[in-house]
Amino acid sequence: MITLTTDFGLKGPYVGEMKVAIHRVHPDPKIVDVTHSITRHSIIEGSFVMEQVVKYSPKGTVHVGVIDPGVGTSRRAVIIEGEQWLVVPDNGLATLPLKHIKARKAWEIDVERLRRFTGWEVSSTFHGRDVFGPAGALIDKGISPEEFATEIPLESLIKFDIEPRKKGDSWILKVIYVDDFGNVILNLEHYRRPDEVELPDFGLKIPYLDTYGQIKPGELLALPGSHGYLEIAVNQGSAAGRLGLKVGDEVRVRLVQKS
Amino acid sequence: MITLTTDFGLKGPYVGEMKVAIHRVHPDPKIVDVTHSITRHSIIEGSFVMEQVVKYSPKGTVHVGVIDPGVGTSRRAVIIEGEQWLVVPDNGLATLPLKHIKARKAWEIDVERLRRFTGWEVSSTFHGRDVFGPAGALIDKGISPEEFATEIPLESLIKFDIEPRKKGDSWILKVIYVDDFGNVILNLEHYRRPDEVELPDFGLKIPYLDTYGQIKPGELLALPGSHGYLEIAVNQGSAAGRLGLKVGDEVRVRLVQKS
Amino acid sequence: MITLTTDFGLKGPYVGEMKVAIHRVHPDPKIVDVTHSITRHSIIEGSFVMEQVVKYSPKGTVHVGVIDPGVGTSRRAVIIEGEQWLVVPDNGLATLPLKHIKARKAWEIDVERLRRFTGWEVSSTFHGRDVFGPAGALIDKGISPEEFATEIPLESLIKFDIEPRKKGDSWILKVIYVDDFGNVILNLEHYRRPDEVELPDFGLKIPYLDTYGQIKPGELLALPGSHGYLEIAVNQGSAAGRLGLKVGDEVRVRLVQKS
Repeated sequence: MITLTTDFGLKGPYVGEMKVAIHRVHPDPKIVDVTHSITRHSIIEGSFVMEQVVKYSPKGTVHVGVIDPGVGTSRRAVIIEGEQWLVVPDNGLATLPLKHIKARKAWEIDVERLRRFTGWEVSSTFHGRDVFGPAGALIDKGISPEEFATEIPLESLIKFDIEPRKKGDSWILKVIYVDDFGNVILNLEHYRRPDEVELPDFGLKIPYLDTYGQIKPGELLALPGSHGYLEIAVNQGSAAGRLGLKVGDEVRVRLVQKS
Repeated sequence: MITLTTDFGLKGPYVGEMKVAIHRVHPDPKIVDVTHSITRHSIIEGSFVMEQVVKYSPKGTVHVGVIDPGVGTSRRAVIIEGEQWLVVPDNGLATLPLKHIKARKAWEIDVERLRRFTGWEVSSTFHGRDVFGPAGALIDKGISPEEFATEIPLESLIKFDIEPRKKGDSWILKVIYVDDFGNVILNLEHYRRPDEVELPDFGLKIPYLDTYGQIKPGELLALPGSHGYLEIAVNQGSAAGRLGLKVGDEVRVRLVQKS
Repeated sequence: MITLTTDFGLKGPYVGEMKVAIHRVHPDPKIVDVTHSITRHSIIEGSFVMEQVVKYSPKGTVHVGVIDPGVGTSRRAVIIEGEQWLVVPDNGLATLPLKHIKARKAWEIDVERLRRFTGWEVSSTFHGRDVFGPAGALIDKGISPEEFATEIPLESLIKFDIEPRKKGDSWILKVIYVDDFGNVILNLEHYRRPDEVELPDFGLKIPYLDTYGQIKPGELLALPGSHGYLEIAVNQGSAAGRLGLKVGDEVRVRLVQKS
């Protein structure tokens, strides 16, 4: 199985071109479109989405991610081998999925050797079609990365900093995702379940619950979400809209235990 | 074949998570994405879309629908067995597809028994990934619902009221769908073909034709549409925009025979 | 493989209906969704998108395109046979893909004979589901077009005029595509690589480069793009927005060689 996560948008030929290019080198791929609507060039958002999909994918799945503001420059195109595979630009996109795939090796794709398999020119602007899609298809077919890539140290991969910071009794958290519903997802995992969540900069204390429907429509709540990160939501509304938050913003948060 | 109809939106990880979760329990599913852009929480709209797809699907198709404002509350997750299968929250979503599948049995999914097949935790907020997707995949694989669900009376399923009402010589109809083009679809089927359609509250009489192109761009018409329900449209324009109508609105309609 | 390019939008039942209809006549189709978000009724835009996908598709691929403002009128539904297949309304949509498929024959679909294979009524408004989808599926299954279509002269196919015009030392070009990022694609191919591109009507001279990242964010450039046509872009911004251009607009362009 090959999953595709990109910021190509749904209107253009780009998604179609990448998929038919995969079919050119792989006679019968199982392609799962994750999303092609990542906010343009938002590496954090793409990384979060890829992480969620990795967590529920079977072993051996090949995840192709193309959020690639540096296409055509000297940024590396990489393959990461583990219980699952990542095929991505080396720009931090792999950061969050790497937490789950037990990476063993990393490879830099050699575009010239890859072309022996595809047969077509590599453009300077569309490596989804010319590099990442075909590379993922070859991996999925069982071709070794040795055939078209060079091993590189795992430690050399670029990662962004996503650790939550503590300051006194508060967390300084970062918005790592805002979903279509306006739910705000913060970079805090594995915390002790609080009774309330305080957002001091907004003058708000909101209940911590299990699901949206436990509170009246239009009211704020905090919850574990479906992904393990702390989530701020409005039942049947948009927390991002209400609080004016977007990916990358910092938020001060206190987890309150009442007893 | 498994079809998917949801309100998850296209930007997030949700659609991808549901699809890889299906792959976790089913090695080679044929998945047809119907839409993931149902208006959030619009059960009527989702029901209409599922009905249209059911009408053209082969026997044995498994239709998974997740428009689920009550996720995490006590609403039931159900399977409906007939010439085709429905796997949906029991909140009325099955109402319109039920007209076409010759239902024989209904089942309530037992989340604890389902988990024996999936192996992962069931979240309180995302039953598309944790319940409906995997349940649909198991049915499609040929596993009996008995293995993870309990039979319930067909009559106990929740349905919304979608019958057209007559008042004098007029129909009081409900908008059950507005498509991307702004075509307005009303809950009247199996009517005698009129010459004109009168919308008294708008002071309008519009011709009843076969297709959009039979009238000038920008003009209103009524037509049978491609789904058998009475449709109000503007050739190359939006009838919903022109008349200010949305799903759930009531419209008074007279079907006029000239001879 | 069957590719689908339409203007049906993603919200409605239409895409789902077309895909299940394909499954009704073809037990195991490989369907590639190219896009369903072509600007409504924009034949040029659809033609450009289909061309790009054709260029990277394997031989034998069946491309179904439905941008069909004349549905239900007397416009022909056609099949074009070559190294790849096109199944489209005869309204110009085939113009650009025809440059690449080495067409040998063309056929007009006979709806009555097609119905012997599908078994359902043909609506006046939705030939994606009732005509083009099933016809593409039958071709992909290996059924000869003779079984449900009549040969017509290749020369009788409708094409739009897409030749670039020369006026003095300038080109009068047409915008044939604006992608989701706002990149503007013009109808000029196979030109000698310039050093600069002048847009006299905008008082602009912009550099001609290989990729977006070679210039500062927010600045204009011209480049070959990933498709071989002259492209005007803004790095990390929208050239269409900046210049106020949309599909169909004319632009005067001078290609400047400095040495």
